[in-house]
Amino acid sequence: MSNFQSLTPSDLEFFRQLMPGRVFAGEEISTDYDHDEMTEYGHAMPEAVLQALTAEEVSQVLAYCNSEHIPVTPRGAGTGLCGGCVPIHGGIVLSTEKMKRVLEVDTRNMTATLEPGVLLMEFPAALEGTGLFYPPDPGEKTATMGGNVMTNAGGMRAVRYGVTRDYVLGMQVVLADGSILELGGKNVKTSSGYSLLDLMIGSEGTLGFLTRLTVRLVPEPHMNLSLLMPFDDLDACIRAVPEILGCGCDPTAVEFMEREVITCAEEYLGKQFPDTSADAYLLVRLDGNDTDALRPAMDTLTTLALSLGARDVLLADTDERKESIWNARGAFLEAIKGSTSTMDECDVVVPRDAIPQFVRRSREISRETGVRICSFGHAGDGNLHIYACRDDLDEQTWARAVRDVMDRLYAAARALNGAVSGEHGIGHAKRSFLLESLGERQLQLMRGIKAVFDPNGILNPGKVI
Amino acid sequence: MSNFQSLTPSDLEFFRQLMPGRVFAGEEISTDYDHDEMTEYGHAMPEAVLQALTAEEVSQVLAYCNSEHIPVTPRGAGTGLCGGCVPIHGGIVLSTEKMKRVLEVDTRNMTATLEPGVLLMEFPAALEGTGLFYPPDPGEKTATMGGNVMTNAGGMRAVRYGVTRDYVLGMQVVLADGSILELGGKNVKTSSGYSLLDLMIGSEGTLGFLTRLTVRLVPEPHMNLSLLMPFDDLDACIRAVPEILGCGCDPTAVEFMEREVITCAEEYLGKQFPDTSADAYLLVRLDGNDTDALRPAMDTLTTLALSLGARDVLLADTDERKESIWNARGAFLEAIKGSTSTMDECDVVVPRDAIPQFVRRSREISRETGVRICSFGHAGDGNLHIYACRDDLDEQTWARAVRDVMDRLYAAARALNGAVSGEHGIGHAKRSFLLESLGERQLQLMRGIKAVFDPNGILNPGKVI
Repeated sequence: MSNFQSLTPSDLEFFRQLMPGRVFAGEEISTDYDHDEMTEYGHAMPEAVLQALTAEEVSQVLAYCNSEHIPVTPRGAGTGLCGGCVPIHGGIVLSTEKMKRVLEVDTRNMTATLEPGVLLMEFPAALEGTGLFYPPDPGEKTATMGGNVMTNAGGMRAVRYGVTRDYVLGMQVVLADGSILELGGKNVKTSSGYSLLDLMIGSEGTLGFLTRLTVRLVPEPHMNLSLLMPFDDLDACIRAVPEILGCGCDPTAVEFMEREVITCAEEYLGKQFPDTSADAYLLVRLDGNDTDALRPAMDTLTTLALSLGARDVLLADTDERKESIWNARGAFLEAIKGSTSTMDECDVVVPRDAIPQFVRRSREISRETGVRICSFGHAGDGNLHIYACRDDLDEQTWARAVRDVMDRLYAAARALNGAVSGEHGIGHAKRSFLLESLGERQLQLMRGIKAVFDPNGILNPGKVI
Repeated sequence: MSNFQSLTPSDLEFFRQLMPGRVFAGEEISTDYDHDEMTEYGHAMPEAVLQALTAEEVSQVLAYCNSEHIPVTPRGAGTGLCGGCVPIHGGIVLSTEKMKRVLEVDTRNMTATLEPGVLLMEFPAALEGTGLFYPPDPGEKTATMGGNVMTNAGGMRAVRYGVTRDYVLGMQVVLADGSILELGGKNVKTSSGYSLLDLMIGSEGTLGFLTRLTVRLVPEPHMNLSLLMPFDDLDACIRAVPEILGCGCDPTAVEFMEREVITCAEEYLGKQFPDTSADAYLLVRLDGNDTDALRPAMDTLTTLALSLGARDVLLADTDERKESIWNARGAFLEAIKGSTSTMDECDVVVPRDAIPQFVRRSREISRETGVRICSFGHAGDGNLHIYACRDDLDEQTWARAVRDVMDRLYAAARALNGAVSGEHGIGHAKRSFLLESLGERQLQLMRGIKAVFDPNGILNPGKVI
């Protein structure tokens, strides 16, 4: 992987002939392409940006880059949080931003087939009137569907519905040598050899370039409501999570948030949150076909929450109330970002009953290191997003402190049998933590797999492994 | 893979020292170990049978066999249907039959951790009183949990709950070189490198030897009921399947059966089925917490079925009635087996809306080839089990005819974008069909992966790829 070649004028000429008007080099490249949402993890300009339209083009580009040893960094909307789409070895960025067609909605098989550049926020329009919906619901709605698949994104509704992996039935993917493969399809089950499909999901563009995907849809519940549960202290709040999950109410989401983050979001959005009197909150969402069907679960959850120390249980069943809560929840990342100079992020996942221990430990780590830490996340999945905020620390202090914070957070997660990333992926920012977490033998296997799919290492070099 | 070594006395001595009383060679080996449930696919005696107890033993056995180039065929209960556990290259059979402990039921995390030799029928006892259950429900209840994971078994409840893959959170697995790996754990989501866990699931023991697994449990619905829908003809029956799936009633199972198979089962069990007046039947199961909650779905399904040509809709809500139906359904395979001299099986899966076409085509194939064909299966998943029965055909005629039938069935599945196996796996019996279905490039990738995990090819040689 060390003998990458820089682009020559003839390389560029080849690309321009193949994809007229969709190749950008040098000054033509927008600086948008040199980073993702976590600028903390560095900037790197590609030598060229190519906007793909078809699998055949992608096949030709990859076969060419493979024989010329040119690094190829796939990119969707650039909303990642681990530097996954940053071209740290130069070469080309191959963007899916123009592959935006929903090709088919098949209501009889309950599937949709689409190009990878469709944004998460754009997809629901294609399903309107079908009575079907696509359950994965990551917070970043301007992410691409392809990016979601390649990081196995999770999101708010994973407690009930599972993560992106659970909804991908098929994909068309181009290998480094230009082969175009069809993995899976519309079949809802299969035991036909190794699951190359599952290997591709979450591989962050290091094994192949996604050009089409087929996802499973499910009947859309007719309504939903949310319960906001304020707690006087963090401990009681977090301790309630496993009880709520175990009470048989099948919640769609169980989110955890603290007042500090809510206040950030209020400032960021310029809108009031329904309640800011308490230290910590749980937000529980229920989906169903009508209020009557949900009433037993509402009653059970309300009684349970009050018995576990909630000060109150606020019902959000109007659009206005639901929006005021969920819009705030959706803005947390941006709001925290806006509250500090720079920050670093940890996206660990731990067994669900270990959440209280992990959150307590992160509080201790903040005290031990003197770094302000904000956290929120998918309490119902054991997946927390923890942000170390630089605030006014000088560069040297921050560099040392943030490494210290992250080392301690990942060590705490390991001690609880957690994993490095719940849903954001590894990119280049989390590689050392992945190695520590999985050990050398598992990394060896992953490197072996990488070599099978991409022997010259041109696909997203320097990422994941 | 061609230079496998036969067992020497010193090899046997090594195994006997390591696993006293659990090594069997020569005459000591029961002929049970030379086949699986499909004797059609041939018999092969191992040179030794080893009954493993611990991962450490498995590690030592595999490391030894790896350095001595001795083939290792993993075996659970031997209930497979593709010859997956038949030691076609000799060497040892490494059996999980004594690894039968349920190590932990963790109600807070809703997981169970168990050894691979626990039988599917034994597992529910460990969950009694927890309010939790393990949804996968393959027909063969004497199969091991480990075997289910390694073939990604499906079963009756997959329409609503998904297949085995969807419930495996973690595993301990021993590689060919003796490395013991912990893949996954109790975390309910992860985006932390390539999913080695998903690669192992369905790999039929060719990549590693499973020594422990952690599965996800879900709250058990308090009750269930079934609706039996007799149809005058097969076409109307099968045409109703996509409508039933699309009506928003969230069925747990949608099974398809024909009178001929039901009559076989009646004879086999010596028990009456509630109705044998019609040519073809759908059996729909609903799960829920009480009858009131299920009533809207029952009403919708009844009205729908009658409008689509069902002669009647029989409600099975008593234990007696449910048993008489589901016991018959559970006995179909054995009953067909008992009705003929030998048979061959096809386990294809097609997109759900292609079921009518596929069933019609299988009828035509029966007429074209003169071979009696029985079919039943998971209509709700697009997964049908189709049996070609030898009856009184002479050996030569049968050999030619069965190959012809299978070629035509798999070609029909391919034409409908189906896959070779929905839930039984590939073993050694379906390898040529897998190659035809996936093409050379995907098989190359799978062979490359195999070489990464098992460079000497000692693990279950001659299977899958």
